Amino acid sequence: MDVDAAVFDVFGTLTDWRSSVTEALSGTGGRAGLHADWPTVTDTWRRCYRPALKRILDGELSWRPLDALHRLTLDEALAEHGLEDLDDAERDVLVQAWHRLRPWPDAPAGLELLHHTRVLTATLSNGGISLLARLTKQAGLRFDCILSAELARSYKPDPQVYRMAADLLEVKPRRLLMVACHPDDLEAAARAGLRTAYIPRPLEWGPAAGRVDPPAVVDLVADDVIELAHALGASGRTRP
Amino acid sequence: MDVDAAVFDVFGTLTDWRSSVTEALSGTGGRAGLHADWPTVTDTWRRCYRPALKRILDGELSWRPLDALHRLTLDEALAEHGLEDLDDAERDVLVQAWHRLRPWPDAPAGLELLHHTRVLTATLSNGGISLLARLTKQAGLRFDCILSAELARSYKPDPQVYRMAADLLEVKPRRLLMVACHPDDLEAAARAGLRTAYIPRPLEWGPAAGRVDPPAVVDLVADDVIELAHALGASGRTRP
Repeated sequence: MDVDAAVFDVFGTLTDWRSSVTEALSGTGGRAGLHADWPTVTDTWRRCYRPALKRILDGELSWRPLDALHRLTLDEALAEHGLEDLDDAERDVLVQAWHRLRPWPDAPAGLELLHHTRVLTATLSNGGISLLARLTKQAGLRFDCILSAELARSYKPDPQVYRMAADLLEVKPRRLLMVACHPDDLEAAARAGLRTAYIPRPLEWGPAAGRVDPPAVVDLVADDVIELAHALGASGRTRP
Repeated sequence: MDVDAAVFDVFGTLTDWRSSVTEALSGTGGRAGLHADWPTVTDTWRRCYRPALKRILDGELSWRPLDALHRLTLDEALAEHGLEDLDDAERDVLVQAWHRLRPWPDAPAGLELLHHTRVLTATLSNGGISLLARLTKQAGLRFDCILSAELARSYKPDPQVYRMAADLLEVKPRRLLMVACHPDDLEAAARAGLRTAYIPRPLEWGPAAGRVDPPAVVDLVADDVIELAHALGASGRTRP
């Protein structure tokens, strides 16, 4: 596939938010003397995310950074599980768990391979610039550029976010590839004129969750970031 | 020195614009059958830059991307040297020379050392996001984040540019270090509340130019990026 740049979703597509956030919740919750099925609390927290995003995109809530949105949805999730005893400081620490997520095993090697091609790589996430710069640094996810929906003061799947990426990278939307494991992200990118690549992440919601159906229309499907890098012209032999 | 992030000037501080742009001018000019003292034409082009910036910051010219500004100043420089024969397409090619500059020999190794410290690194240049992402990729200048004055739709030394960097990286200005070889950049950063590090680049204007005086007030002076990395806590032994 012939593109000039590839932009990547981060939560889910490159990082295993579920195990990382569960660890943070069970650690902070445990120290506070609370007991819960922590993976389920994590799933609830993540499930509150899309409705909250929608309220912002619908104009019902004003735009705020992702950390503030995560704090709002954490309060909802804790209330749902009867875990109101966590105080403000503990909740703020939990929000920071999204800054330190474990990468999927193939992601560091795949991005390193891509870095050595002519294809420019960037994040395109709803996480803020600061969160993304810190997360990619500690997780060893090498990017040529950090882009965030924050720069458009909006969130994916707002078409403005995808167009902003094409504008800032000075590439035509048809020469820009959106890479994600979420069909709705890819469908919105396609509507904004971008090319799309789907990477399945069957473990995103844990070992018991099933494979998500790929989007109806997609330009490329790759098993992981290493396979994607080879499809985009990488010639290295790196394997994790 | 204890800081959370370091932002870098690029033209001059990390890259040898003079030899790179001279090569482009003599190549394009030579192919067009023109003869000139090309290093002097390069110096004229670069000398037209600050007055043009000032016209934008004074509101005399509307804000435009650096490529458009470089095109304007190229036209002035070529006219000054009687080189009006270059056509539009040739001039556009020359503007692109600023996207492919040679790094100073210590810069790739020094930035790699810094990447492995806890200090977040970013560009903070008047070059646009696309220019910086391409330039740093091809020059092997590793950054954790690409920031540009373009994101503030302004140019350094506007204090808004330095404050924007602190905001996007979510660090206090006093925990953010501006690194540059130009005293005026550092003085403006200091006025915006940032810490400052000076790296002399005596060859910036060629072998005949002298050493520039360091700014009157600066928090750190380092001979090159490797020495700076060690001052910020890097412990590797990389030498170029």
